Amino acid sequence: MTRLLPLLCFILSFNVLAELRATGDLGIVIEREKGNALIVNTTKHTQLAKIEKLGDLSHASVVFSRDERYAFIFGRDGGLSKIDLLQDKLNKRIIQAGNSIGGAISQDGKLIAVSNYEPGGVKVFSSDTLELVADIPAVYGEGKRSKVVGLVDAPGQRFVFSLFDAGEIWLLDLKNPKTPAIKKFLNTGKQPYDAVIAEGRYYIAGLFGESGLALLDLWNPEAGVKRVLPDYVKDDEKLPVYKMPHLEGWAVAGDYLFVPAIGKHEVWIIDKRQWKLIKTIPVLGQPVFVMARPDARQIWVNFAFPDNNQVQIIDANELSLAKTLAPGKAVLHMEFTPRGEQVWLAIRDDNRLAVYDTETLEEIARLPADKPNGIFFSARAHKTGL
Amino acid sequence: MTRLLPLLCFILSFNVLAELRATGDLGIVIEREKGNALIVNTTKHTQLAKIEKLGDLSHASVVFSRDERYAFIFGRDGGLSKIDLLQDKLNKRIIQAGNSIGGAISQDGKLIAVSNYEPGGVKVFSSDTLELVADIPAVYGEGKRSKVVGLVDAPGQRFVFSLFDAGEIWLLDLKNPKTPAIKKFLNTGKQPYDAVIAEGRYYIAGLFGESGLALLDLWNPEAGVKRVLPDYVKDDEKLPVYKMPHLEGWAVAGDYLFVPAIGKHEVWIIDKRQWKLIKTIPVLGQPVFVMARPDARQIWVNFAFPDNNQVQIIDANELSLAKTLAPGKAVLHMEFTPRGEQVWLAIRDDNRLAVYDTETLEEIARLPADKPNGIFFSARAHKTGL
Repeated sequence: MTRLLPLLCFILSFNVLAELRATGDLGIVIEREKGNALIVNTTKHTQLAKIEKLGDLSHASVVFSRDERYAFIFGRDGGLSKIDLLQDKLNKRIIQAGNSIGGAISQDGKLIAVSNYEPGGVKVFSSDTLELVADIPAVYGEGKRSKVVGLVDAPGQRFVFSLFDAGEIWLLDLKNPKTPAIKKFLNTGKQPYDAVIAEGRYYIAGLFGESGLALLDLWNPEAGVKRVLPDYVKDDEKLPVYKMPHLEGWAVAGDYLFVPAIGKHEVWIIDKRQWKLIKTIPVLGQPVFVMARPDARQIWVNFAFPDNNQVQIIDANELSLAKTLAPGKAVLHMEFTPRGEQVWLAIRDDNRLAVYDTETLEEIARLPADKPNGIFFSARAHKTGL
Repeated sequence: MTRLLPLLCFILSFNVLAELRATGDLGIVIEREKGNALIVNTTKHTQLAKIEKLGDLSHASVVFSRDERYAFIFGRDGGLSKIDLLQDKLNKRIIQAGNSIGGAISQDGKLIAVSNYEPGGVKVFSSDTLELVADIPAVYGEGKRSKVVGLVDAPGQRFVFSLFDAGEIWLLDLKNPKTPAIKKFLNTGKQPYDAVIAEGRYYIAGLFGESGLALLDLWNPEAGVKRVLPDYVKDDEKLPVYKMPHLEGWAVAGDYLFVPAIGKHEVWIIDKRQWKLIKTIPVLGQPVFVMARPDARQIWVNFAFPDNNQVQIIDANELSLAKTLAPGKAVLHMEFTPRGEQVWLAIRDDNRLAVYDTETLEEIARLPADKPNGIFFSARAHKTGL
């Protein structure tokens, strides 16, 4: 037995070594109804692991630690789950609120901020331990609390978010997490429902309660929040809005923003020097995500029911439609590989993922997934404003 | 003994497990004179390993595999070294030419291209095995061979490079690596010496033999190579040029390019909509690298001898100088962390690295390094055109 010891230890340690895994080409796929997270490899198109029972993931989003080892999943039920991508397991899970709508990770990677509906506010946790670091109730008026939406990270260890009920935008500075500094912008527009940050600089909130968009230039916060694109409004009379488009899907390509029109079968092209509409592109349905390939040459658009079995691609050079694809039933989400050679699609009602080559526009791989509704790659760790 | 076996195996496997390492926050530092590569961790500000004897690294550059596990180091002596960041060791090393000037990795991560002076041309290797996949001699005129410079990767599994002696720009399509497709642009300007790709779209070559820059728009290659910025020229009469600036350091910030003037104590601000000079900013010496913080708010500039003990920071909002730092003797290179909260400096003659907080502009860490001349972080794996 003694003579076998080195051999046995060698075998055991070899098994561990054999699993050496880099983290730059990993991703998380959300299985909505089961509440699972799949760990996937984007080079080999394989599923590496399934982490189960993470609660209500019907509107889940994911951010990654700066070393790309951990994924933080924000669930609709206020759950915050930390997944270890190297060990294929749940590292920690807390229920931090009653109803949550997403989160972000600080520039230095040390803080996780979550935006909550109930109780309305932002909670900030240590990314290391998930211990509470700061609690920011979204109090407005006479002691009322607002739902918080559109939370994004910004340079300088800051977060920006909007108060749905209050119509306010708050700029939260956490350089000293124990003493958060908050700059509040009041009366910024009725019922902001989502927001996006463009180029790490422009915070843009969509308004549900009135027309136009609220714009805050983080390079010039003293100029306050401006209203832009006054014609950007849902068109209640003509078409029912099946799904409010995601602002985080807004695509920046050179001087242009490609924006989903609300309730209309159009993508709008905005010149971001002047925040003016310069062209509308008719598309086949109500756009949900309008996303640029990382080199910005292609803009991919998916749609609300009943047109969600198709995807359209806009050529950002020609500013016109280039191609229509029919990937499968209910294309809910799209994620590009970091250098854009491929795009992954979550096709809910076909219970699978599809991988497309963005050059040939051909499907090159399929992976099974149970009712997938979100795909998030680890390269997001290196980006601002997600 | 038998009863100890599980314990011993546990300890051994625990030691291996304890080294579990993610790869999103790693980097390579080049020690020029020793020919070493240090593996560093940008979260903990630590050196993890030293890989020795990699040949002549006097003008080394580094790219990373798409999973961020491997670093490929291009040496001046034609050496191509593949470093395993998970196992702290050299995976493979070849001498692929007599004199080399840099390289790039393909969009899909499968191909490594190297630009060679001697023999003049580009060689393409499998990133997996370092086996030769394609050999592209830079033949021009009547069978002459040119030095190749300014090699960058581009979307669509392409590489772009310039022929110094021929004054040509070649667009190499490797969608089928066995049958490379080359589109040649002739008479694009005398003696291109370096190049940069902006936004994955604009290939810009600096010219040593005449004034101006050669511009190829990869979205419209049929339009050919244009000459822009006719005043961009070294000013032989007034100041000797101590070091030609690096074009790969060109900073893109919104609508502007920040460009080192050749031989002058100036940084030029170019409006890239019209490729016109809109402002010059006087700086304290001849700029070498002019690099944007990832959010583009700050532009950091280092200088040629004898001013290379200082660094200046331009405010991209005000378009003016914000700060001058004196980090140490001979600041040769700068690398931002991917989300820009820190910048690392290679300070050759102080034999150390310095890490600065880009918000406070204070030094927050130092690491020893022998004559460091280059810093490259693994997040480069996810970027195009490096």
